[in-house]
Amino acid sequence: MTAKNAFYAQSGGVTAVINASACGVIETARQHPDKIANVYAGRNGIIGALTEDLIDTNQESAENIAALRYTPSGGFGSCRYKLKSLEANKREYERLIEVFKAHDIGYFFYNGGGDSADTCYKVSQLSEKMGYPVQAIHVPKTVDNDLPITDNCPGFGSVAKYIATSTLEASFDVRSMCATSTKIFVIEVMGRHAGWIAAAGALVADQDIPVVTLFPEVEFDQDKFLAAVKAKVEQYGYCTICVSEGCHWPDGRFLAEQGTRDAFGHAQLGGAAPVVANMIKDALGYKFHWAVADYLQRAARHLASKSDVEQAYALGKAAVEYALAGHNSVMPTVVRKSSVPYVWEIGEAPLSEVANVEKFMPKDFISDDGFGITDKCRDYLYPLISGEDYPPYENGLPKYVTLTNAGVAKKLGPFEV
Amino acid sequence: MTAKNAFYAQSGGVTAVINASACGVIETARQHPDKIANVYAGRNGIIGALTEDLIDTNQESAENIAALRYTPSGGFGSCRYKLKSLEANKREYERLIEVFKAHDIGYFFYNGGGDSADTCYKVSQLSEKMGYPVQAIHVPKTVDNDLPITDNCPGFGSVAKYIATSTLEASFDVRSMCATSTKIFVIEVMGRHAGWIAAAGALVADQDIPVVTLFPEVEFDQDKFLAAVKAKVEQYGYCTICVSEGCHWPDGRFLAEQGTRDAFGHAQLGGAAPVVANMIKDALGYKFHWAVADYLQRAARHLASKSDVEQAYALGKAAVEYALAGHNSVMPTVVRKSSVPYVWEIGEAPLSEVANVEKFMPKDFISDDGFGITDKCRDYLYPLISGEDYPPYENGLPKYVTLTNAGVAKKLGPFEV
Repeated sequence: MTAKNAFYAQSGGVTAVINASACGVIETARQHPDKIANVYAGRNGIIGALTEDLIDTNQESAENIAALRYTPSGGFGSCRYKLKSLEANKREYERLIEVFKAHDIGYFFYNGGGDSADTCYKVSQLSEKMGYPVQAIHVPKTVDNDLPITDNCPGFGSVAKYIATSTLEASFDVRSMCATSTKIFVIEVMGRHAGWIAAAGALVADQDIPVVTLFPEVEFDQDKFLAAVKAKVEQYGYCTICVSEGCHWPDGRFLAEQGTRDAFGHAQLGGAAPVVANMIKDALGYKFHWAVADYLQRAARHLASKSDVEQAYALGKAAVEYALAGHNSVMPTVVRKSSVPYVWEIGEAPLSEVANVEKFMPKDFISDDGFGITDKCRDYLYPLISGEDYPPYENGLPKYVTLTNAGVAKKLGPFEV
Repeated sequence: MTAKNAFYAQSGGVTAVINASACGVIETARQHPDKIANVYAGRNGIIGALTEDLIDTNQESAENIAALRYTPSGGFGSCRYKLKSLEANKREYERLIEVFKAHDIGYFFYNGGGDSADTCYKVSQLSEKMGYPVQAIHVPKTVDNDLPITDNCPGFGSVAKYIATSTLEASFDVRSMCATSTKIFVIEVMGRHAGWIAAAGALVADQDIPVVTLFPEVEFDQDKFLAAVKAKVEQYGYCTICVSEGCHWPDGRFLAEQGTRDAFGHAQLGGAAPVVANMIKDALGYKFHWAVADYLQRAARHLASKSDVEQAYALGKAAVEYALAGHNSVMPTVVRKSSVPYVWEIGEAPLSEVANVEKFMPKDFISDDGFGITDKCRDYLYPLISGEDYPPYENGLPKYVTLTNAGVAKKLGPFEV
């Protein structure tokens, strides 16, 4: 077996630990120079493959690659670019194979969520048909935690830890002030379709914090919601609300788009948090504060979960090992053996069963009133936020790495994306 | 000298380290039982003194008091309640003295910002006149960093570290995505009058992050701002904006209140961040994300600055030591001896020079274009965010303390606040 090159790309919204997976892929590949000559990374994700804009990771020092383990974001750049179906856009798939062929790429590692699993699956099928077989392995990543089969998705555990911690801290803050001032704190979290991140905020109830959680999985019922908030304030003197950006009315409209207009009459892109906060103020008169965590949550490598970092690395490593063992069209997964203590191992799922399947919160993870989580959900979540994994600091700030990202000489003509 | 009791209260918006000052006050007082019999804390701040709602801190274990050092928020409750002038409301000052007298309180430690320094000052003056002298010592605290004389205010260093880190992390995130997606990230930070916290966000420029900062000290100039953002995007492909909540138009209106209306025509309480983000989108067409950190920033004990925690504790300790040495109507301060390395010691300022003086960013701390900071500002800021001081964790979450806060039996009749 002569050494082939590998291609690695990051897809979709980045996370605090996607670079830890990249680190796992590259460090493991470097241990097998007889089989993997170089790992070429796609500059800005799959677009880099289409435009033949490849990054030569062999030019990166071992120190820089090691630093990826504790650097948030996508070190090689990412993109939101979903390849259309084979029928609708065979041209792009053919171009991918052409680029792989030109650069002697035999392994395709795609690090992303559901869409990229689908792309990865199609590449493995098409390459076979086109007579240039490529081993396509998908490395799971998504803060939304919505991939099937795997126990969880790298990226989620760290967001969950950040949101649970931030919700706890801000709730302590409101509790200090509620007797005479702010009684309501609303934190808006990511998760357009699945409420996993919001569920992490609900964990603070275990520390006697009154929290009302709004999931995308539960249609918003304003009267019931306001009654729940009122009850908490009357009992505790304050209430924290953790609202998912995907929280919506029964007709499907997001809370965030409830007809707010700016001075010029433009539809205002607001968050769900201010909408919820003002709704409470209007109905109950409570003083409020709100926060929208947005990118802060998914980039918060300073508060990463240790188990998340370890799994992100292990999955990148496993992807390379599966490839070297001849596997194709699969995704390494996390298999939970036990929750207390948290014991897990790496498993494997066929991409045909991963692509285009979205995993929502199970019904028995959400409490009967729809505003909290069950013990089953708690047992699931706690292991994922366990342990701390601090980055190094310099001058008071995390010392993250910016790669040099030297390009690989092009061999093909231009390609219009 | 027979032992007297001490009164301690937390005032105004709480911080990640105000409890570290409380810890310093109580632990130091406990070392002098011959002089300080007990520290009574005001439940919910000064209101607790007015209503004679005192907390018996002697009933709190040494472990719980020690845990205050790493617990954010106000452990005894705080309030935003400014005593009016002596002329306008002598009744309240007289009540304070009455409560102090009833509970044999000889020391008044007030932990807060400019308003509480003023109250503290008046109490020391009035108690003298009323023939029941109380030693009034102010312990500085404010995330806004706007107290005079002291090098900085406890609470600020930790917010600054959190905002600089979060801005750095989110900027890495945007940088990963900017080639094909989000190009603008706006983070809104606290600081209604002083731009110290926004200045911390500007530190990321030192890591080659294109950042445009909007200070309350600089009148907002939309054309100049948009040109600055456009230039950054053209050079770097993306731009981070750190906007202070106090950023305002030349006529004084905050950016956050630019006439946004909800579906019912109510003035919408929005943040400055969405206003700025939409303004950029409208003028330049760039895709954006925005975050409003709100309480997350001032409660973020998980990312506290070590120097901030140490100073918060040291100032609480010094307050007690000054009191025991017979000082009155003073505030312990941080005196900077050197920036590199950061060397500081405790100094002392008369409250007459602290009360009602607000410290803004000096002109020579803001860059000529008004959108960044100068080296002088950098030299000032870096020491304040230096070092990490992590809280203990349990089950993946910080293990913060909730005090029992047992009450002291009342001796006086009720009082209407």
